Amino acid sequence: MGRESYWASDPSELLRAGEGFTLADVDPHSHPGFDGDKADGEKALAEGAAILAEQQELLFANSRGGDDERRVLLVLQAMDTAGKGGIVKHVMGAVDPQGVQLAAFKKPTDEELAHDFLWRIRKQAPSAGMIGVFDRSHYEDVLIGRVRELASPEEIERRYGAINDFERELTAAGTTVIKVMLHISLDEQKQRLAERLERPDKHWKFNPGDIDERLLFPKYQEAYQVAFDRTSTTDAPWYVIPANRKWYSRLAVQHLLIDALEAMNLEWPKADYDVEEQKARLAAS
Amino acid sequence: MGRESYWASDPSELLRAGEGFTLADVDPHSHPGFDGDKADGEKALAEGAAILAEQQELLFANSRGGDDERRVLLVLQAMDTAGKGGIVKHVMGAVDPQGVQLAAFKKPTDEELAHDFLWRIRKQAPSAGMIGVFDRSHYEDVLIGRVRELASPEEIERRYGAINDFERELTAAGTTVIKVMLHISLDEQKQRLAERLERPDKHWKFNPGDIDERLLFPKYQEAYQVAFDRTSTTDAPWYVIPANRKWYSRLAVQHLLIDALEAMNLEWPKADYDVEEQKARLAAS
Repeated sequence: MGRESYWASDPSELLRAGEGFTLADVDPHSHPGFDGDKADGEKALAEGAAILAEQQELLFANSRGGDDERRVLLVLQAMDTAGKGGIVKHVMGAVDPQGVQLAAFKKPTDEELAHDFLWRIRKQAPSAGMIGVFDRSHYEDVLIGRVRELASPEEIERRYGAINDFERELTAAGTTVIKVMLHISLDEQKQRLAERLERPDKHWKFNPGDIDERLLFPKYQEAYQVAFDRTSTTDAPWYVIPANRKWYSRLAVQHLLIDALEAMNLEWPKADYDVEEQKARLAAS
Repeated sequence: MGRESYWASDPSELLRAGEGFTLADVDPHSHPGFDGDKADGEKALAEGAAILAEQQELLFANSRGGDDERRVLLVLQAMDTAGKGGIVKHVMGAVDPQGVQLAAFKKPTDEELAHDFLWRIRKQAPSAGMIGVFDRSHYEDVLIGRVRELASPEEIERRYGAINDFERELTAAGTTVIKVMLHISLDEQKQRLAERLERPDKHWKFNPGDIDERLLFPKYQEAYQVAFDRTSTTDAPWYVIPANRKWYSRLAVQHLLIDALEAMNLEWPKADYDVEEQKARLAAS
């Protein structure tokens, strides 16, 4: 396949937060495994879009035409401006909207707070045949939850285990879980926030609270490191994607999705009716 | 705007099912108001995609940055193969997925049947700032419901009024309701079903029940006519779109959406914070 030629080595391996992974060692400006510049990256993204769209249709078809329970869940986490929205728009936007289940998790409502932190998450788990995308997720409860001490230390500790149990349930039910942290530098974030303040058509994307969060950047990096240490499992691994270059982070996420789908060896489901008989019925109708 | 040059007259007017509208008079192969061929239509669709995407972002921004309650609901109804899925993929697919709320209504579950027919529909009404799309809808309950006598005649009668009340609630809450029937001919449907039976990659899209429904085509046309007569209101009009030519039906739906959004005169919301003050805070961070 054309897209393979750009990758010097498999990004899924390079980007996985495995044993001994250290966030501080990742350069947000790098583009691991990809031998090419921005123009090459955009070309590869366009080529990948067609592949991803076909794989998604196969996944969807098998849940409908067959009884395939498989599905994908892409979890997106990042500091503000790192490009979660761009992934949804430019990677998922190339896929038939009928096959995508998108859930954006904002500050919890009073009703949500009255339940366990996984209550609102479970309701949005993707159905068979779908690609679910979480724009923020249950990880907020061990990220902002930890940094801003929104729960007791004991409760935060409990959550790592609860998350692993929950994700094990998902994978057992046929979900391929792909957890992505988009990693930008403090400087890059400053530039991107400045752009939102410069351009009147971007003002709505800025919130003064974004700067409050920015001031806690090092504490968030620590909280991410703990999350990787505790929840990057074989079944539901974390991938840390350098995101200072948007073209790279989009391409890398697209690649993770394509890899996950291709690993399913999907084929068009066989008809569960007699094709010739139906042709005859149709001809007579 | 470039796209206007193709339209000899406003399709929103031409396609509306107003007083005295008769479905039987609409030629499914026609392309009302559009002076051009397939290539022109595809070019116009690509141009419209950028306009629709910007209008959608404005709508979304105003619900977030401002407190604008406005939203859009596109209701899609049609006989099998008429192209609902293609509208979702090719018209809505050009829009940021974060701004689209898609709901596909299948055969009701037992739980849904235990409630009023509008119960499951209300839960999927779009939130402020969103474009909601119903792939099938509450109209199934007066279409298949009527044709296959799934409810008593009295209950079917009651539903037209209940639908008008419900849609009046939606519009009062800031929803622009656009109801679209994609109109194909019996012959065109035969060809499209035949293609699904010919191609193994399309077998999953075919269901023997599609032919059972096809045999009731005239009864469905009658049921649609009654629905138009009873529920095409000033606030929530029906549009009947000739759909034998896919390029035309997609373009026409896109046009209806753009028209509805442009009529809102959306502008980028003003910042609700002091921009200069935030620039200074950011610089110091």
